[in-house]
Amino acid sequence: MVAIGDEILSGRTKDKNIGHFAEVATLAGIDLMEVRIVPDVEARIVEAVDALRGRYDLVVTSGGIGPTHDDITADAIGVAFGLPVEEHPEAVSRLEAYYAGRDMPFTEARRRMTRTPKGARLIDNPVSTAPGFSVENVHVMAGVPHVFQAMLDNLMATIPHGRPIESRSVPCPYGEGDIGDALARIAKARDGVSIGSYPRFSEGRYTTEIVLRSRDRDKLDEAESAVRALLAEMG
Amino acid sequence: MVAIGDEILSGRTKDKNIGHFAEVATLAGIDLMEVRIVPDVEARIVEAVDALRGRYDLVVTSGGIGPTHDDITADAIGVAFGLPVEEHPEAVSRLEAYYAGRDMPFTEARRRMTRTPKGARLIDNPVSTAPGFSVENVHVMAGVPHVFQAMLDNLMATIPHGRPIESRSVPCPYGEGDIGDALARIAKARDGVSIGSYPRFSEGRYTTEIVLRSRDRDKLDEAESAVRALLAEMG
Repeated sequence: MVAIGDEILSGRTKDKNIGHFAEVATLAGIDLMEVRIVPDVEARIVEAVDALRGRYDLVVTSGGIGPTHDDITADAIGVAFGLPVEEHPEAVSRLEAYYAGRDMPFTEARRRMTRTPKGARLIDNPVSTAPGFSVENVHVMAGVPHVFQAMLDNLMATIPHGRPIESRSVPCPYGEGDIGDALARIAKARDGVSIGSYPRFSEGRYTTEIVLRSRDRDKLDEAESAVRALLAEMG
Repeated sequence: MVAIGDEILSGRTKDKNIGHFAEVATLAGIDLMEVRIVPDVEARIVEAVDALRGRYDLVVTSGGIGPTHDDITADAIGVAFGLPVEEHPEAVSRLEAYYAGRDMPFTEARRRMTRTPKGARLIDNPVSTAPGFSVENVHVMAGVPHVFQAMLDNLMATIPHGRPIESRSVPCPYGEGDIGDALARIAKARDGVSIGSYPRFSEGRYTTEIVLRSRDRDKLDEAESAVRALLAEMG
């Protein structure tokens, strides 16, 4: 995923799209492998998109597709794919109808939102009409969270999913330092199961949440039993 | 910045450190230029740290320095710099004293938290003692937000700052599409001032927050006047 926007890097806006996408992808059996947050600078967007689109099956972007001069994502995607960027006829007719229906002028700024790399597929925007778009394995969506989320729902309906990862959470009354050695031994002996531990700090002491994740339910059951047996032994 | 952790990419944990660092850096006059979120995989951490440490003055990392087997940030930083990773004597004595004072065993897992690339400088951890560390321009801190924040406060006291960026926010009752054209003209004519616009959507309509940012107060004043004059003209 590439999240685009000076406002995230300056701290003015707290990104909400990365966490949302991470959850939706995980539920759908898609592993989110890497996220980059880049400024509204064409060369930086191009670099990030190019790096990720070659490496991973799927890239989503958020931000930079509005009507103002700092919305340069469409141009950057055009550069990344070597495609001219032009008004997408279907996007133009959707926005014409949208603004006509609201008695609002279809300004040149608003027309910017119809620009896509030539041949892009549109991603529907049920909230405010101006669409996202896809070029090959790169899916370009809005930065405003409720628009991003709506576009993502439409996108997810169209892309192939993997087998979902199941996860199990085992609360542990000990700190990471108390269980780390034994947990490492359990993790080392088990392929196909990821065992993470997440410290919690409250009321002056650490406890731990142990999270096991796998696509294989049998392996997950077995690893969970091993962890629970360990905790019972320590108690 | 490099944020490290499977739990962020899976959506289980919502990152809080990126937004916090972005705010602190901006206040201190440091421009955050890029963020990467990578999994607990050594090669991915090394790649991200190497890419950013060559390009930028300063790199901070969050996550992966706890006592468990998935805490591999110290090893990854060692690989990135070609340095052996070993127990840092000062970190060992701090943690020995800390656990002795709490009558807790100084387990092998806890000893992991004293490992740093050879010659690293420690970053104090007033919350739970186990320190972060710096190698050259890379500063490695915890992922637990209140520990990250405390380490960051200590780090910020030791690094040179730029001149802070000032920002002005001008509320605008029109949507981005209504002001985009005129705003683009204002932005284009002004070097050294960044003009961003951020859509707000509530009660069924878009308004806009226009944010001007600059290190030069005179330029900022002039640009803000131009934006306010534009809005007055439209009103």
